[in-house]
Amino acid sequence: MRPIDALVHSLSEARVVTDPDVVASYARDRTFLEPGRPLAAVLAASREDVVTTLRWASEHRVPVVPRGAGTGLAGGSVAGDGAVILSLARMTAVRELSPADEIAVAEAGVITADLDRAAREHGLMYAPDPSSYEISTIGGNLATNAGGLRCVKYGVTRDSVLGLEVVLADGRVLNTGRRTMKGVTGYDLTGLFVGSEGTLGVITAATLRLRPAPDGPPATFAAEFGSLREAGAAVSAIMAAGCRPSLMELLDRATLEAIDDWRNIGLEPGTRAMLIGQSDAGDGQQAAVDRMGRICVEHGASFVAVAAGPEEAEELIGLRRLAYPAEERLGACLVEDVCVPRSALPDMITAIEAAGARHGVRVCTVAHAGDGNLHPVFIFGHGVAEPPAEVWAAADEVFTRALELGGTLTGEHGVGLLKRRWLAMESGPVAAEVQRGIKATLDPLGILNPGKAI
Amino acid sequence: MRPIDALVHSLSEARVVTDPDVVASYARDRTFLEPGRPLAAVLAASREDVVTTLRWASEHRVPVVPRGAGTGLAGGSVAGDGAVILSLARMTAVRELSPADEIAVAEAGVITADLDRAAREHGLMYAPDPSSYEISTIGGNLATNAGGLRCVKYGVTRDSVLGLEVVLADGRVLNTGRRTMKGVTGYDLTGLFVGSEGTLGVITAATLRLRPAPDGPPATFAAEFGSLREAGAAVSAIMAAGCRPSLMELLDRATLEAIDDWRNIGLEPGTRAMLIGQSDAGDGQQAAVDRMGRICVEHGASFVAVAAGPEEAEELIGLRRLAYPAEERLGACLVEDVCVPRSALPDMITAIEAAGARHGVRVCTVAHAGDGNLHPVFIFGHGVAEPPAEVWAAADEVFTRALELGGTLTGEHGVGLLKRRWLAMESGPVAAEVQRGIKATLDPLGILNPGKAI
Repeated sequence: MRPIDALVHSLSEARVVTDPDVVASYARDRTFLEPGRPLAAVLAASREDVVTTLRWASEHRVPVVPRGAGTGLAGGSVAGDGAVILSLARMTAVRELSPADEIAVAEAGVITADLDRAAREHGLMYAPDPSSYEISTIGGNLATNAGGLRCVKYGVTRDSVLGLEVVLADGRVLNTGRRTMKGVTGYDLTGLFVGSEGTLGVITAATLRLRPAPDGPPATFAAEFGSLREAGAAVSAIMAAGCRPSLMELLDRATLEAIDDWRNIGLEPGTRAMLIGQSDAGDGQQAAVDRMGRICVEHGASFVAVAAGPEEAEELIGLRRLAYPAEERLGACLVEDVCVPRSALPDMITAIEAAGARHGVRVCTVAHAGDGNLHPVFIFGHGVAEPPAEVWAAADEVFTRALELGGTLTGEHGVGLLKRRWLAMESGPVAAEVQRGIKATLDPLGILNPGKAI
Repeated sequence: MRPIDALVHSLSEARVVTDPDVVASYARDRTFLEPGRPLAAVLAASREDVVTTLRWASEHRVPVVPRGAGTGLAGGSVAGDGAVILSLARMTAVRELSPADEIAVAEAGVITADLDRAAREHGLMYAPDPSSYEISTIGGNLATNAGGLRCVKYGVTRDSVLGLEVVLADGRVLNTGRRTMKGVTGYDLTGLFVGSEGTLGVITAATLRLRPAPDGPPATFAAEFGSLREAGAAVSAIMAAGCRPSLMELLDRATLEAIDDWRNIGLEPGTRAMLIGQSDAGDGQQAAVDRMGRICVEHGASFVAVAAGPEEAEELIGLRRLAYPAEERLGACLVEDVCVPRSALPDMITAIEAAGARHGVRVCTVAHAGDGNLHPVFIFGHGVAEPPAEVWAAADEVFTRALELGGTLTGEHGVGLLKRRWLAMESGPVAAEVQRGIKATLDPLGILNPGKAI
């Protein structure tokens, strides 16, 4: 009996896909990266299925590539030759939702927005909102410590996780963390597994923190600036003033041009950047956006619009939503993800523009400005499978400059496969050794998502 | 040459204390626990001193007990026979304070309140505020992941840490984390070292997140309740309403009686609990405490006072500050630290009262109610060195009940030596194995604070 037959026998044929064409459909994420030829895909429906799969994989030393919905942007769930893909997408139970304690226990396959909707039935929300949240899973969000637009107020995924159920490489089940708001018993294993991209264990469920939901739609403003430095100063001033925006996005000139080409938004020739901000603070939110708008004017904004109601707000925030589709019209896209200290935002955007110009690559940048997290989108030929050399040359310059400015290679997308070649530049040898030591402790056979993350 | 002479030679006599009486003064924390006879105390003044000490300790396999100001409440820095105590208290530099990026880089020996004051000169604050913050150090706060009164709004120490400088057991220097608000490069080593109680490495400096400071003093209210259940329901309703209190403390009847005995506060016979809450939300804070007060009335409060100004606020918050000194008048104190899901707060206090009554032990409880974190203080005979058997019997019941209610053994004080015997009840065997594996990877010789935390 081949090893894979033993797995099929243990789990049933309905759970294990071996048809190569079907398996291939589980082998990619949202990057251009080409998968290898994986052995099979397990469609786990329970923690026990995951335990069975990992015991089998340990016994036969088969690499396991866990995945949620495959919306990753760094190659973390791209499967290689001979691997078994372990999909958590069918583990969709919200095991518990306690309004009194403001917590939910969700399985890894729950769609993030579904959990948020379930919470809102009780006046609560699940705050983390990666752009993919209508299609990505909690498990994937946890594995990458996903960010999102509301991070600026509510933090990243890790900030909403209290505890985890994890299946270790050898099939043991580990429960980390707690159900309480605070707790310091033992090491922070919860934080360690969050963001470990499936290389230390397979997260099957999580105890998540919910928060009171805002009463109604947020208040919104937009501001245009003639220089990046003024826009950056306005962002810093808004944050320093304690305005607590629930969203603070910056669109650069190239992004605005891409949108204007498509939808004719009447872009002024002198506009170099647009800020779009929101407050969801209830009674105080209109005053908060008015104040943010005034701060923009004080810092040189050429134009400020504060939405009078939800419809006008939709128009303003709609510009932000148009950014990525407008860029996709122009060609294939490599979406990057550096993060810098907030004060370095204008320098970073300037460096991105210079790198693009130097290598003849069109780059559009949108930033979660309140967090200093920038997404430079490098655009290349339609239908070209992989970013050409000049895109990588420009990206290389961007990564180097981000690190020089005290920043990081990835603010929220993860390292996956795509960022590994730059990793040593950021982490240094001691951190690499420590991470490899932890990996070896938890996955001594090296079967969990090998070649990713660290 | 004795091994210790080699250390004195490397570091200078001014840095290494070997006089047993002086060494003994560095061997305790704030618990009753008796230290052993440590070999020496190193008063490190720089990262290099720490590197030298740990290299030496690895070479000679000498246990190292790191300490800050020794304000711990769990025995984490109590030194055993033959250990070298490594005090970080002289590493007091704030290496950097960047108002634009809202970060500070502080050495381990910086007094927590000093960092907060340095931040306030720039309109910022360092949010974590353990009760000891005028005398405890950043390094000690990091080692225990200290909590505090403001946690309910700003989170625990870990929530304000972006990166660490750590000296590993063999003297290698590890830099973890980042200077940015977000970042997902590699495993969360920062979170792992925070709260590890000096068992994985010695934290010498940290990159810390600052936040905009409130403009003026907070607004304050107090409310009295005839039942614990009503008080608990009021706390839940306040949190669910999104009032965002910056402090939300509950005092039980026994605590109020201890204060009343001393200061005659006119305690009503029917009062079972008092809630004291604050808001530091600036323009909106008076409205916020008014609203919290109304919610208390709706949930059955027999009396609500909203402070009209800072003086009245001082009087109300002063009651909370009197709690511990009032208890110390009654006898020696064992300060405990369980945390439960917020909805279990009334059940937990009831269980604490029952455990005290059953074992004939006076127990007063103050809770960081917004977080469900309770400090039952077990009072025993003045001058008695160790808690007697009936205190441990009552504490044992309290711990067991906290776990039954979905809670944890320690919300913010740490495990240290005191909680180790209950650890297995909470963590289970797999978590214990994983933690021991991580410990063995980072400290293969077992020289770092042996016998603590895990």
